[in-house]
Amino acid sequence: MNVLITGGAGFLGAALARRLAAQGVAGRSVERITLLDRAAPAQPIDDPRVCHVAADISDPAALERAIGEHTGTIVHLAAVVSGQAEADFDLGMRVNVDATRLILERARALGTRPRVVFTSSVAAFGGPLPARVADDTRALPQSSYGVQKAIGELLVGDYTRKGYIDGVTLRLPTISVRPGAPNKAASSFASGIIREPLAGLPAVCPVSTDVRMWLQSPDCAVSNLVHAISLDGALLGIDRTVNLPGLSVSVGEMIGALREVAGADVAARVRFERDPVVERIVTSWPSDFTAERARTLGFVADRDYASIIRAHLASHGVHTAA
Amino acid sequence: MNVLITGGAGFLGAALARRLAAQGVAGRSVERITLLDRAAPAQPIDDPRVCHVAADISDPAALERAIGEHTGTIVHLAAVVSGQAEADFDLGMRVNVDATRLILERARALGTRPRVVFTSSVAAFGGPLPARVADDTRALPQSSYGVQKAIGELLVGDYTRKGYIDGVTLRLPTISVRPGAPNKAASSFASGIIREPLAGLPAVCPVSTDVRMWLQSPDCAVSNLVHAISLDGALLGIDRTVNLPGLSVSVGEMIGALREVAGADVAARVRFERDPVVERIVTSWPSDFTAERARTLGFVADRDYASIIRAHLASHGVHTAA
Repeated sequence: MNVLITGGAGFLGAALARRLAAQGVAGRSVERITLLDRAAPAQPIDDPRVCHVAADISDPAALERAIGEHTGTIVHLAAVVSGQAEADFDLGMRVNVDATRLILERARALGTRPRVVFTSSVAAFGGPLPARVADDTRALPQSSYGVQKAIGELLVGDYTRKGYIDGVTLRLPTISVRPGAPNKAASSFASGIIREPLAGLPAVCPVSTDVRMWLQSPDCAVSNLVHAISLDGALLGIDRTVNLPGLSVSVGEMIGALREVAGADVAARVRFERDPVVERIVTSWPSDFTAERARTLGFVADRDYASIIRAHLASHGVHTAA
Repeated sequence: MNVLITGGAGFLGAALARRLAAQGVAGRSVERITLLDRAAPAQPIDDPRVCHVAADISDPAALERAIGEHTGTIVHLAAVVSGQAEADFDLGMRVNVDATRLILERARALGTRPRVVFTSSVAAFGGPLPARVADDTRALPQSSYGVQKAIGELLVGDYTRKGYIDGVTLRLPTISVRPGAPNKAASSFASGIIREPLAGLPAVCPVSTDVRMWLQSPDCAVSNLVHAISLDGALLGIDRTVNLPGLSVSVGEMIGALREVAGADVAARVRFERDPVVERIVTSWPSDFTAERARTLGFVADRDYASIIRAHLASHGVHTAA
């Protein structure tokens, strides 16, 4: 098995590469993992099967080099994140729509109908929503990022229907706790308000404690990506987009879990300073899903939010208030 | 008022131009109507306010010429139709997606937030559907045309949300009875099985009599386009896509109405010869809608199908079985 990961140097891509190298996919080993990304992974992946192609996914020549007959599976993670796509509409369109099309076209040109796993987001939803988003709730995105992801979903569906690829789109919950530095995602705080206090740093929360989010740990997200790589496409039928399971957690509950795991002094490092731009985007996203279809298909969720914090501590070092 | 109509030489565009020239919009007169189309209208429109720009909508330079500061309203009708978009995926993407983006970009560049009326279709729907499509039923299109139209809907919504345009998307029912020659739309027969027999010609129906369709007359479609031009955007709120009202009519009922209006001999000119490609596309479309929001917004439907046939006869000459 030969896997190409766009955005492969990002935290999720690199974690996926490590998991694939260590465990393979559904009993099959992985011969080659190509990380297509402008940057190299923050921490080198010391495995001869993992290689890094330094290129922009909006460069057709780079895609032609990186994706070839040997490419059996493409995991397309690279994206301009929500906050940045809102601030720079044209950049978002170029990367999230145009480069996604280039990747789909390259996959089609292979003629081998490769599995393409595309990551969409809760941001595909917006507007008036039921208390729990159902599997057939419509996408009415209220951010450019969400619109661009919804366009990708439609394309993955049609390329699959036409027999050009064998596509699966996962609508990912917000990932928390994401390691590394803050980014330009509107949801960046959902990791920052845990990660920074645990590292002894102050954190700013731009939304109120009652804002509720649909969350998944990086580890769980990687498990779901691996599952999507080997999932039988026939089980998906004509609807290639899956709402992933997750945890519905309010910001207040997140900070409560931080207090429970690391103590009140750590939790007190979170300061509230509302940011209307972030708030508008984040509160347009749904915060709870039935995700029935995903569970039936074998996708998974975390047990509870405190476990997510403990797993983050175990992987990334401990700075408790002790 | 200055209106640009893409696909303006087509039957719907030309009918809209005539209506605008004759009646204006909501009490306002129209100073200029520009028909942007590769071809000239089949029947010249003899009005000094109507001009024709012969160009392809996928040509940015032509769009720059045709759409200028003077352009207050853009009605974007031009499209590669369903059967053709299914047969030639790349052509459909180029015209239905890429050219739509060029038009939206040109509208954005004006800086005047022009009204853009975009025509989508029942083909935006597909897959498992309720007996009557509700206003919040999701779009899960099962044809490339439907996917391309759904992408246009998302873009019109986001360009509007960003304040680049003031957009309205109408999901048009299948138009029947369309005058002129058959075209490459999978739904072309829905006009042909009425138009050809009335003209003394044989017609082939590629689907069975129990196939049910969501229909609207050309006259009613033009009324709805005119209504969309002047509709207050605030009434639409964040959801800029409207399912138009229509008539739910089976092919058997259509032929029954033809018999009622023109006699059994005329209706007997329809021969059945199933075409699985057409049948697959057409039966993936919904055949009934609540269209509650559209009615509240003032959009209209025809009274019954026999009236549509009579109106077609009145406008396009009579060939009854008498």
